[in-house]
Amino acid sequence: MTDTWLTTLITDTPQQGFELAITLSRRGVKYTQPDSEVLHKLRPEYANDHAALTAASQVIALNFQTVAAANNYWRK
Amino acid sequence: MTDTWLTTLITDTPQQGFELAITLSRRGVKYTQPDSEVLHKLRPEYANDHAALTAASQVIALNFQTVAAANNYWRK
Amino acid sequence: MTDTWLTTLITDTPQQGFELAITLSRRGVKYTQPDSEVLHKLRPEYANDHAALTAASQVIALNFQTVAAANNYWRK
Amino acid sequence: MTDTWLTTLITDTPQQGFELAITLSRRGVKYTQPDSEVLHKLRPEYANDHAALTAASQVIALNFQTVAAANNYWRK
Amino acid sequence: MTDTWLTTLITDTPQQGFELAITLSRRGVKYTQPDSEVLHKLRPEYANDHAALTAASQVIALNFQTVAAANNYWRK
Amino acid sequence: MTDTWLTTLITDTPQQGFELAITLSRRGVKYTQPDSEVLHKLRPEYANDHAALTAASQVIALNFQTVAAANNYWRK
Repeated sequence: MTDTWLTTLITDTPQQGFELAITLSRRGVKYTQPDSEVLHKLRPEYANDHAALTAASQVIALNFQTVAAANNYWRK
Repeated sequence: MTDTWLTTLITDTPQQGFELAITLSRRGVKYTQPDSEVLHKLRPEYANDHAALTAASQVIALNFQTVAAANNYWRK
Repeated sequence: MTDTWLTTLITDTPQQGFELAITLSRRGVKYTQPDSEVLHKLRPEYANDHAALTAASQVIALNFQTVAAANNYWRK
Repeated sequence: MTDTWLTTLITDTPQQGFELAITLSRRGVKYTQPDSEVLHKLRPEYANDHAALTAASQVIALNFQTVAAANNYWRK
Repeated sequence: MTDTWLTTLITDTPQQGFELAITLSRRGVKYTQPDSEVLHKLRPEYANDHAALTAASQVIALNFQTVAAANNYWRK
Repeated sequence: MTDTWLTTLITDTPQQGFELAITLSRRGVKYTQPDSEVLHKLRPEYANDHAALTAASQVIALNFQTVAAANNYWRK
């Protein structure tokens, strides 16, 4: 991938950090399967499978650990 | 998602922190499958499958690691 | 859940910390499936499935990471 | 469980720490299924299943993270 | 493996760090199965299986935790 | 196991650290199934199963987190 999509892990709010964690999780998939059409085709079975949804949430949780630490947990 | 649902990781007690970890885990699912009706339909098979329940508990554990660190483990 | 079950992550000994990690792991399940009868019914197949037992041990390991860090690893 | 099996996370060497991580992993299983006879019966299918062996190694890795941190990585 | 492929965990940007995390994840596979031909043959079924893609993203997330910590999260 | 195989987590380079992480991952398997013949027999199905290869890479990633932290990420 040649586009720039990640220049910082710092976000203003924890919610933006959570959404960045989602972006990181999706990019992890996209680097492995860059073909959007294939990803699109997989989506219906994916989004209707509770195990898949929990697994997605787990990857987000791992990436949120990283983003939260980077932001020193948005402590005031 | 345009609503604000996460403004801080700081909670008064570890139990509230654990409950925030549950919220984060569910949001991770909801960002991937925003359709509440689908989620509702998946619930019965989900909540009666021990592997799914353990997987859910695992995601909560990961998010609780983040929330607990953010709160400096609620040390006095 | 309205009862108070988690007021501190601090324990006297690492073994008590490990047992707290087990409590956290079970609570993660219970928040997702609060019906004790269902949980009771799932138990036999669960406790006789080696993959399930390893998965349970994994969740305990994650929660023990949190509890151990909270207690500064019970270093003297 | 009423016996005392874990009084410290500190070990002399990283190898002893790794072996403690194995003990923690097995205890996680044993708290969930305390019946030794059942565990014994599950062992053959377990120890001949590569996915189960990798999963066991994963739990050990998680517990080794905890033990290694407790020992400050046995840095001299 | 005798070639040198990893001399530092430090990268200029978080995106380069994420790409290093992908390299680490692929190397973890390659050390276990060094035969490129086998890996090539496995690829089609792999890249079309949503569970496999999520699992890949999870390994990347774990390695990104390491790389991000090494780089002190690219904080300015 | 009575042989000494782990005396330090410190390595000269990140690549040696990654290779130590692989050793730790394999040892985790070997402590659970010490019979080399069984492990040898499991290898073909293992090394040709993409899910197994990803799972192996995940355990390596977890152990690499430990080794990298021990080495303070080989920062200069």
